[in-house]
Amino acid sequence: MESLRVTYRLAVDRRAAESRAEEIAREQTVEVPRAALRDESLRERIVGRVEAIDEDGSDSRVTIAYPIETTAHDPAQLLNVAFGMTSLQPDAECVAIDPPASLCRALGGPRFGIEGLRKATCVEARALTCTAVKPMGLTPDALAERLRIFARAGLDVVKDDQGLADHAFCPFEARVRACLEAVDEVAQETGRRTLYAPNLIGAPDTLLRQLRLAEDLGAHAVMASPMLLGLPAFAELCRRSSVPVLAHPSFGGALRFAPEALFGTLFRLFGADAVIFVGYAGRYGTPRAACRALADRLREPLHGLRPSFPVPGGGIALAEIPEIVSFYGRDSMLLIGGALLTAQDDAELAARCREFAHRVADGSKEADGRRPTRSEAEPSEGR
Amino acid sequence: MESLRVTYRLAVDRRAAESRAEEIAREQTVEVPRAALRDESLRERIVGRVEAIDEDGSDSRVTIAYPIETTAHDPAQLLNVAFGMTSLQPDAECVAIDPPASLCRALGGPRFGIEGLRKATCVEARALTCTAVKPMGLTPDALAERLRIFARAGLDVVKDDQGLADHAFCPFEARVRACLEAVDEVAQETGRRTLYAPNLIGAPDTLLRQLRLAEDLGAHAVMASPMLLGLPAFAELCRRSSVPVLAHPSFGGALRFAPEALFGTLFRLFGADAVIFVGYAGRYGTPRAACRALADRLREPLHGLRPSFPVPGGGIALAEIPEIVSFYGRDSMLLIGGALLTAQDDAELAARCREFAHRVADGSKEADGRRPTRSEAEPSEGR
Repeated sequence: MESLRVTYRLAVDRRAAESRAEEIAREQTVEVPRAALRDESLRERIVGRVEAIDEDGSDSRVTIAYPIETTAHDPAQLLNVAFGMTSLQPDAECVAIDPPASLCRALGGPRFGIEGLRKATCVEARALTCTAVKPMGLTPDALAERLRIFARAGLDVVKDDQGLADHAFCPFEARVRACLEAVDEVAQETGRRTLYAPNLIGAPDTLLRQLRLAEDLGAHAVMASPMLLGLPAFAELCRRSSVPVLAHPSFGGALRFAPEALFGTLFRLFGADAVIFVGYAGRYGTPRAACRALADRLREPLHGLRPSFPVPGGGIALAEIPEIVSFYGRDSMLLIGGALLTAQDDAELAARCREFAHRVADGSKEADGRRPTRSEAEPSEGR
Repeated sequence: MESLRVTYRLAVDRRAAESRAEEIAREQTVEVPRAALRDESLRERIVGRVEAIDEDGSDSRVTIAYPIETTAHDPAQLLNVAFGMTSLQPDAECVAIDPPASLCRALGGPRFGIEGLRKATCVEARALTCTAVKPMGLTPDALAERLRIFARAGLDVVKDDQGLADHAFCPFEARVRACLEAVDEVAQETGRRTLYAPNLIGAPDTLLRQLRLAEDLGAHAVMASPMLLGLPAFAELCRRSSVPVLAHPSFGGALRFAPEALFGTLFRLFGADAVIFVGYAGRYGTPRAACRALADRLREPLHGLRPSFPVPGGGIALAEIPEIVSFYGRDSMLLIGGALLTAQDDAELAARCREFAHRVADGSKEADGRRPTRSEAEPSEGR
């Protein structure tokens, strides 16, 4: 019988962890006191099985295997079984989720993944560059003007800032139209097309309307923030999108959900082709070990799912690029905004963009031999 | 100009809080370094304004007023502006959200609220009783059998356990049909109808299919877990539902979002008619002050929004009922599961249910004069 394995870090010692683990295994499934489990067969068929309890400094780590049937292979119910009620226990953190093959088949993971995004950007063997059109408050034309600068400098991917919604002062349709025209125009000049990803945001109806509009206007990628939309709504968006989907971490700051489990395993499983996160470089201070684990979760073999691009951002300086490319390897995409936008004028902005592009290309050559990242080329079993 | 006021607790002293507050006001809107704000007018029109900085023990509290236009009056973008990127800063917690009138009109809040749920249960002036049909793993018939016991004992509201999905071993339609039949049957015997709320769970499509099915089968209320579904998907569900919607806290365990702001303000604003939370009594240990604040946020006057029922749960013992009814007042609903379900047999289960009902009725009489809870009777301006 297949299981969903979930690992929790508990702020209790190993001894106390034994009874806590057993409680969690019940709480996440039958959610009744042990004495209320009158039907013996439920313990076999439904209740999670405690598989491992280990010390982790003064804390403990417990791994519980839940019968996969409890998840109904549904994205919302998966979260419910993995961390629903236990997320409300102040001393518990979900640190790893290990989805079995049937769940990977059911949810499907990235529809395009690293390979699809390389195809969409025509970048074969180096790390990719990414920046954002912003800030919120500019008109569609002013945003498109910035996009022209980024595109002429040869940046690979330009996403909307995650704060660009369907604003009265900058409506979605006008913005996406102006930005796509800018990209087309520069492609005619240079022969190279920057991939522009408009930000989709709203309740499910709004979201799908925006997706159709973006596709109709000719977008070749989109972006969304799974934690703002809700992971199940994000999963549905990925299933319906005909173009790659980038995931943004906004509203994802649940300290109690380890970044590698949330942004790494779940975002990929639900279909993100590229996952933006705040890395060790910059103003968020995610630990290097968490960044490494997150990138591993996105690219390692997982029941035939396509690998996703790790997209570190959150305040990377241009001087840090070589080290960062070396850290993540060339199957990565660097997202830089502020270090470009603090330029004094458009000429300096263009120069910084070119420096960004060159440093990533150079860093990728050096990273080449040293840290090959393993991608699975074969398509997912599920589709 | 209207503003969305958001208050954050920062783990820094008052002095450091000044520059942090200014950074947050930018991060949540334009998200560029100060030097990159070349267009002066954006500071006026878009960037949040720091309104207050106060000491809070060794921490600080800062309140920022964001121009309401930045939210586009959209549920997802509201979360984005309120706590999107700042949720990723380890030393920041969102502790209060103060929505202005235009946002309340746009989102609408509860469609039924306390008044509508009192009408649906025919309970006029006392606290309500609530329990759950569970555990996951039982067949539709076995769950319906439990529901019959609860209904005969006179409990007001019986919800599905939040873990009941569209399982292979207990499909949604069969379960809801069997449970509604059980409720009807007992109503014929006793003349009093228990309100049964099926749990809706899944990606947006699944969710709406389940809602239509539940309505067609004759459900007079439904339940959903906003943090599992995503708050914007939950808001859309509430907007489409023809019956009251109970909100369940599953997956809501972001320590970094104060329970009163998340479960109190946001769940109500997005439309929950009753909000289940884990209270001070029981196994989750939410502080009493947080429970008080949460209940206040759900029932206090708020730009014409209907009040929502606070529904404390999470391990209430029967002996604690009088104190709990006195704490929350009679505009509350008590959710008890385990203390009923640990009964040795069905006869004892029925007896415990009757005790639950009696204690709540008695407690409500005593609470009558002492803690009147203010409800707004007038309908929302928005509809």
